[in-house]
Amino acid sequence: MIKMKRILILGSTGSIGINTLNVIRNFPEKFRITALTVNTRIDLLEPQIKEFNPEFVVVKNKELAEELRKRTGKSTKVLSGIEGLTKVASESDYDILIGAMVGFAGLVPTIEAIKRGKRIALANKETLVVAGELVNELVKQYKSEIIPVDSEHSAIFQCMSGENPSEVEKLILTASGGPFREMRKEDFEEVTVEDALNHPNWKMGNKITIDSATMMNKGLEVIEAHWLFNLPKEKIDVVVHPQSIIHSMVQFVDGSIKAQMGLPDMKLPIQYALTYPERLPNSFPRTSLSEISTLTFSKPDPHKFVCLRLAYETLETGGTAPCILNAANEIAVDKFLKKEIKFSDIPALICNALDHFDNHKNPELQTIIEQDKQTREYVKNLV
Amino acid sequence: MIKMKRILILGSTGSIGINTLNVIRNFPEKFRITALTVNTRIDLLEPQIKEFNPEFVVVKNKELAEELRKRTGKSTKVLSGIEGLTKVASESDYDILIGAMVGFAGLVPTIEAIKRGKRIALANKETLVVAGELVNELVKQYKSEIIPVDSEHSAIFQCMSGENPSEVEKLILTASGGPFREMRKEDFEEVTVEDALNHPNWKMGNKITIDSATMMNKGLEVIEAHWLFNLPKEKIDVVVHPQSIIHSMVQFVDGSIKAQMGLPDMKLPIQYALTYPERLPNSFPRTSLSEISTLTFSKPDPHKFVCLRLAYETLETGGTAPCILNAANEIAVDKFLKKEIKFSDIPALICNALDHFDNHKNPELQTIIEQDKQTREYVKNLV
Repeated sequence: MIKMKRILILGSTGSIGINTLNVIRNFPEKFRITALTVNTRIDLLEPQIKEFNPEFVVVKNKELAEELRKRTGKSTKVLSGIEGLTKVASESDYDILIGAMVGFAGLVPTIEAIKRGKRIALANKETLVVAGELVNELVKQYKSEIIPVDSEHSAIFQCMSGENPSEVEKLILTASGGPFREMRKEDFEEVTVEDALNHPNWKMGNKITIDSATMMNKGLEVIEAHWLFNLPKEKIDVVVHPQSIIHSMVQFVDGSIKAQMGLPDMKLPIQYALTYPERLPNSFPRTSLSEISTLTFSKPDPHKFVCLRLAYETLETGGTAPCILNAANEIAVDKFLKKEIKFSDIPALICNALDHFDNHKNPELQTIIEQDKQTREYVKNLV
Repeated sequence: MIKMKRILILGSTGSIGINTLNVIRNFPEKFRITALTVNTRIDLLEPQIKEFNPEFVVVKNKELAEELRKRTGKSTKVLSGIEGLTKVASESDYDILIGAMVGFAGLVPTIEAIKRGKRIALANKETLVVAGELVNELVKQYKSEIIPVDSEHSAIFQCMSGENPSEVEKLILTASGGPFREMRKEDFEEVTVEDALNHPNWKMGNKITIDSATMMNKGLEVIEAHWLFNLPKEKIDVVVHPQSIIHSMVQFVDGSIKAQMGLPDMKLPIQYALTYPERLPNSFPRTSLSEISTLTFSKPDPHKFVCLRLAYETLETGGTAPCILNAANEIAVDKFLKKEIKFSDIPALICNALDHFDNHKNPELQTIIEQDKQTREYVKNLV
């Protein structure tokens, strides 16, 4: 029997946050929520507060905090802004931080948690994509640990169990290929927001669903895998696997491949990140390969999915290049969702930003934060 | 760098034995052959002696031993019969015994090796099928270890690495389904020896190829898995996977599945059993899922593959039932290969033998040896 673990969720009303609460609901004797943070969705946060009674919540700004205080009791302290996020991460009591915020904003509180030697269950890609080198140094220095929550990285992490990292020949990340896997590149011009949000397998937030359609999501995962598993880009492959049953694979130096499989449901990797190194029984639906019947695989087309290629290139370049890639992509996706640009403009804007800025090697946190800000400003004003 | 390991191969001219030598040839600084045993094929043994210069070899009888002595130098001692096998297993110097003999004859020397606390790289199914309970007790008592060489059990063993055995929900053994996977049961009557020896994926010895066609091979593997991984038959599933790329899987209590994959080549599991817990680099061809493109899965038909069903039933019955199943099957397959019976008579003969003999619970080695002998006599005289 493990001792009760105290949980801080960064981003409790997003897809990963909600699924984390679904997992925790199954194990009331194992986990207790001590803090929840959201951006603006206080309507969704309110019932979470009632159900889980955290000590702290953090919302985007003072107005939302004030509004929330009116609605909820006094047992939960309501904080706001980056100060609030930093305070709960650096001062409140918890054992595991769930990094489930979308985008760049999760970085600072995650670093606070690392400095306290906490376990980070990491779903926020940007933390490693923009600051992988820095984060890895801090994890080592403060004896923190990162357990990946992304299904792909969780799969690799599970396949690495009991294996020697020096005996890995390559990682093979699987990709659904998104809704446009079989579309001709010429037709990318005509893709609507509605088309792009219609993901075949996974139900996720809007930003990540668009990233899946451009395959930037897989590109960010390649960069993340580089930092999590300490392998060069030549040893990280992507294979398109539309059924999303094999979540990723590890090939070892003897030619043996280990794969982790399951239905496309984030609850499984979330639970694993919470309970690792234990596995707890649950009643999630099981995978039946004889019912699924067929699994298919193909190579991704780098000419069609320019974002994937750009991600590999920034990994090669290093320094602030992945930060520029990520910030430019966030703004470009936002513009696409607002119907300000076409789907095919997304990689064009990112290329433009990567060409515009000089690269800084071994960036410190302040350099990264500044580069992120400048890139956003720059891309906002493009077109 | 591991210290040089000394190897005894039981059955060096069979398919597994030859592949073991192929592996060892790649690592002359890691492994040294100290003894080789064969049944009758001294023409194949002779060049092996010249190449590997073992201290001992064992052949079936004194005549063959005398013939071999004339042909080879004096640096290798030539022994014969079960006395010879027992002597090399119990007295010669080695670190790993490769149990690659076909059929029941591997049992006694393997038990000798277990009693000396050696590592057993086990490809001989019968050792665990007929004497699993006894063998497991001895392994525990003498601190020996069994590393499976069968691709399915090696896959499960690899998937278990770093995992807690109590967190296994079920094992999923994959089966190619053999050459008659899609044949109607009515047509089994007409199957010729040539049809049955034409296995779609694996190049193996005749006996195991016929066992693959009847799916008795998978049945014996289910029994073997029961003893290797200490799970009841309800937790051991079989799924038909004609491409033989996924070699088997483990499903854990959280619903996560781990699979081990590779091309259908016995050299990989043999190497793993020799080098475990290390993995050594090699130049075996790598698996490319995007080239393979499609993996398929279906349930095996228990009405069509009666031998698989019989194996599950004897596992339920326990005692000497698996010994009867195995002995009856060996004789029935031999009769089929000699064209004395039809393909569809194989399960009928086994059923007959299972009905004929009383079951003995917790059999000792002598009981097993006696039951094996009696069953063979009985089935030889059937039809």
